[in-house]
Amino acid sequence: MPALDLHSDPVELTATLVDVPSVSGDEGALADAIEQALREQAGHLEVVRDGHAVLARTTLGRPSRVVFAGHIDTVPVNDNLPVRRATGPGGDRLHGLGTVDMKGGDAVFLSLAATVRAPRHDMTFVFYDCEEVEAARNGLGRIERSLPDWLDGDLAVVGEPSNAVVEAGCQGSLRFEVRCTGARAHTARAWMGVNAVHALELPLRRLAEYQARQVVIDGLTYREGLQAVRVTGGVSGNVVPDEAVLTVNHRFAPDRTLEQAEEHVAEVFDGFELTFVDRSPPAPPGLTAPAAAELVRASGGQPVAKLGWTDVARFAARGVPAVNYGPGDPTLAHTQQENVDTREITGVADVLRKFLAD
Amino acid sequence: MPALDLHSDPVELTATLVDVPSVSGDEGALADAIEQALREQAGHLEVVRDGHAVLARTTLGRPSRVVFAGHIDTVPVNDNLPVRRATGPGGDRLHGLGTVDMKGGDAVFLSLAATVRAPRHDMTFVFYDCEEVEAARNGLGRIERSLPDWLDGDLAVVGEPSNAVVEAGCQGSLRFEVRCTGARAHTARAWMGVNAVHALELPLRRLAEYQARQVVIDGLTYREGLQAVRVTGGVSGNVVPDEAVLTVNHRFAPDRTLEQAEEHVAEVFDGFELTFVDRSPPAPPGLTAPAAAELVRASGGQPVAKLGWTDVARFAARGVPAVNYGPGDPTLAHTQQENVDTREITGVADVLRKFLAD
Repeated sequence: MPALDLHSDPVELTATLVDVPSVSGDEGALADAIEQALREQAGHLEVVRDGHAVLARTTLGRPSRVVFAGHIDTVPVNDNLPVRRATGPGGDRLHGLGTVDMKGGDAVFLSLAATVRAPRHDMTFVFYDCEEVEAARNGLGRIERSLPDWLDGDLAVVGEPSNAVVEAGCQGSLRFEVRCTGARAHTARAWMGVNAVHALELPLRRLAEYQARQVVIDGLTYREGLQAVRVTGGVSGNVVPDEAVLTVNHRFAPDRTLEQAEEHVAEVFDGFELTFVDRSPPAPPGLTAPAAAELVRASGGQPVAKLGWTDVARFAARGVPAVNYGPGDPTLAHTQQENVDTREITGVADVLRKFLAD
Repeated sequence: MPALDLHSDPVELTATLVDVPSVSGDEGALADAIEQALREQAGHLEVVRDGHAVLARTTLGRPSRVVFAGHIDTVPVNDNLPVRRATGPGGDRLHGLGTVDMKGGDAVFLSLAATVRAPRHDMTFVFYDCEEVEAARNGLGRIERSLPDWLDGDLAVVGEPSNAVVEAGCQGSLRFEVRCTGARAHTARAWMGVNAVHALELPLRRLAEYQARQVVIDGLTYREGLQAVRVTGGVSGNVVPDEAVLTVNHRFAPDRTLEQAEEHVAEVFDGFELTFVDRSPPAPPGLTAPAAAELVRASGGQPVAKLGWTDVARFAARGVPAVNYGPGDPTLAHTQQENVDTREITGVADVLRKFLAD
């Protein structure tokens, strides 16, 4: 089993974590290493293992508790392991799968877990599996069902890459199918059929004409979107198709609930049959919570709106204010060229250490 | 090997042929049976085997020659074998795979081959493979390359189902892809991308607004068509797609060449990148050829325009006037419920016998 030194520099710890492959579903070896390291090097914490997830927490009786959550899985390996170090005029960088998404954040949390012995807030650490795959397999969802009290707190910090800036709230996401139907016929006798692919013209026109909102909440600007992500239709090369399906993704600001967003897209596609295939609720920014405001102060920067969907929404849905805060540029996540400026790892670790010590 | 009695009633012979499965590529057993039957029961014919095709002809020195061509393969079995006989108020019917497409026509030709000993025209029979799959595998195409003189003649009768009515000429068929391109982006930041699926709106509008021609040639009406047959696009559920492809099938009357039809669709989709994936030339009706006119007279009916594409076009391209003439309703072809009125089999056999004897 690879040994993790939780007292090492978070940058080095990131590199060590990257070199333990942990593609979704295969996080066992990394979870074993994290569990052993926490048990041996952070004896002040209560440690629990749940599948490929590892949880740890203080029970110091502090008036407030902060949950630090990071997934330990990655998307599939793409010729981007082992970790590679590069030094240039822009500073040192770590290259490789997970350097951005999100073993840098995990390393920072593991470092805090082992070294912060007298925090202002009680701390809970959640290292979980299967964030990069379908929501039904998400380890945080499983923990929510089996060990819900481990997710309670006054603030949740999800260490997803955010350029080391506090990102608040997240947009909701709906994915749905717009279905057009027709009647099959041989293309040589097309007038005997009704072409379902031709019928896509109207929903596509509505998409093209759609004006997406920009919504300001707590001073943060959320930019919505309505985008076709897939289109399928066709029977064979000489048949008028009787079905065509357009899959659409709507990203919406946290001033609307899932239900309100569903009503909205039903209006946009009035007259069509919609099937919702994925529903992820939005999370309000939550920056008015005291612990969140403290974190923003400690980070010294202006928070920004989170546009993508992350597991902060799971905390928000439980009534726990939640922010994203982690090293790495999220636009590099899932790319073969994933790499992180090591100063962001160090910076996030320093800010969180200060936040917990103040 | 199943034995074929070429002197039996063509209806019975149809049933026997149906019960020798011959899905495209697996016609070996049926070709063997046909070859053996022709060699043993039609000694007056020159017989040649070519792959899963069997060819036979008279060499009587007649001033003219008629080619009878029928494919012996079928689409895949669909719980519609063995043959089933049904008797009802509408007459006797044979049900099962190939009863329509086109073992009825094959049975008629095999019967003529064995029993018409003194025809007015020299006769060539071509029983060939792989008509139901991609054009590159078509047995008639292979014969055209390896044994081209076997396809020469003054008239070709292709026994595809035509409701026992002479169908003249056939429409051409073009299949092409209309490609829309864009730029990928995460759907949470859609403004950084360009959605290629949304861009399908314009080509779909042109399809929806397209006015198909009706063209009259030699008194026959050809009805054209322009139909989307497939649409694809999409990367994943949270990505703005950078490519979308619409596949379109154009059926066009024989007053246009392939090249003219290509120019026409290029005009319709002006501004888009087109990729032609399938090009099948049209065949003019050819009813002014003397042998064709005789056949129309013998059939006693009004010829109609062939709307679909069939191998008559291969003969037309070689300068051989060609018609479709066979038992069975073509709209039942490729359906599980394929079935034929036995009177059409008998009727086509009687007409062709008269045509050859007159």
